Amino acid sequence: MLKSVHPVQKRLPELVSEQIKELIASKDLKIGDKLPNEFDMAEQLQVGRGTIREAVKILVSQNILEIRRGCGTFVSERKGIMDDPLGLWIIEDKQKLALDLCQVRLMLEPQLARLAAQNATDEDIAQLWKAAKAVEEKIREGKNHSDEDIYLHVLIANISHNEVVTKLISVIQSAVYLFIKITKSILREETIQTHEAIVSAIANKDAVAAENAMRKHLLLNQSQILNK
Amino acid sequence: MLKSVHPVQKRLPELVSEQIKELIASKDLKIGDKLPNEFDMAEQLQVGRGTIREAVKILVSQNILEIRRGCGTFVSERKGIMDDPLGLWIIEDKQKLALDLCQVRLMLEPQLARLAAQNATDEDIAQLWKAAKAVEEKIREGKNHSDEDIYLHVLIANISHNEVVTKLISVIQSAVYLFIKITKSILREETIQTHEAIVSAIANKDAVAAENAMRKHLLLNQSQILNK
Repeated sequence: MLKSVHPVQKRLPELVSEQIKELIASKDLKIGDKLPNEFDMAEQLQVGRGTIREAVKILVSQNILEIRRGCGTFVSERKGIMDDPLGLWIIEDKQKLALDLCQVRLMLEPQLARLAAQNATDEDIAQLWKAAKAVEEKIREGKNHSDEDIYLHVLIANISHNEVVTKLISVIQSAVYLFIKITKSILREETIQTHEAIVSAIANKDAVAAENAMRKHLLLNQSQILNK
Repeated sequence: MLKSVHPVQKRLPELVSEQIKELIASKDLKIGDKLPNEFDMAEQLQVGRGTIREAVKILVSQNILEIRRGCGTFVSERKGIMDDPLGLWIIEDKQKLALDLCQVRLMLEPQLARLAAQNATDEDIAQLWKAAKAVEEKIREGKNHSDEDIYLHVLIANISHNEVVTKLISVIQSAVYLFIKITKSILREETIQTHEAIVSAIANKDAVAAENAMRKHLLLNQSQILNK
């Protein structure tokens, strides 16, 4: 199971899909930018249009490109992050998966909250308050607050200016909602309060309090999973 | 940039690819197991064979399935983990990426070394020594030791019995070798020594020493990147 990650032999469309990725990087294409048309890409990369089409399909299935009908091919907003990039769907015991995700969050997010308290600008803090309010509103309205919840935690990670960790938190948070049947509303009031405590500590530049508030927030989640 | 992760509208082959994943899970197919043939899957999922073929292609590009010519379609050894599941290729500043990866490792791996010291069985410890020796041999032979290095760190993560963290470490470690031009051989002797210190501490069940040894190992890496 602990296999080497060296790529196996690749087919032509896969190789061309790698070249298209290089093209995007070298032309500095941003999210939402349009790619050259099939014709031009085929000429540029010296392959047939059928191969370009296959390669584009691969990149669409990897969330790197998106096709807008009658309009062209664009760099996807989803930046190549898959729904389930870690292949967690194969873990059958979802209760164990929930605990494992929570444990990983406990390893990372208290440290990120501490960093956020040290680095947050006034603008960051304003954004955090807005994001925490958005979660609270959805909860008070009895609506699904998963997007808002993910957004708040990713915002906190983002203040670290570490792009890898921001992507990781986004993936881990999303996995929670992709795979775990979220427990009833028991934690809703606690969620509002502990989010507020986290943002408050970051706003006060109190690194230790921020770390502790995040840890408390996640430990409440953990005991919720264990009591299910 | 901090977009919601809710899936956009899906095409039929994508929906069928989801169903094939469910089929694999429900039939409890393991890595290397063979899938039913195109014909049977088409009948079972009530779609055309062309759609099945498209869906299989998607799953192949996601490293979930692999096609062995003249033999059939199998559950891939790569378990749906992509070469670059976090979409790190889009980060242009590779020096910054190297530091970000190192910072994430510093957040996770010392904790994992501590857990390993607490949980390792005699068999785990024997495996760790073997893995550390394999890295040392490659270094002494002047050969590329990336696979052996990744394997050792993933083994340590694996002792936590947390499948999420094991996958994360595998992804992070692989990214180091995918994206970062590894610095000259300056660190080779230090790598051998610090690996030995980590495994030694785990073998002695000394959690604090294991955590510190891993931290030292990673801090040496970090200063190497900064001095480049």
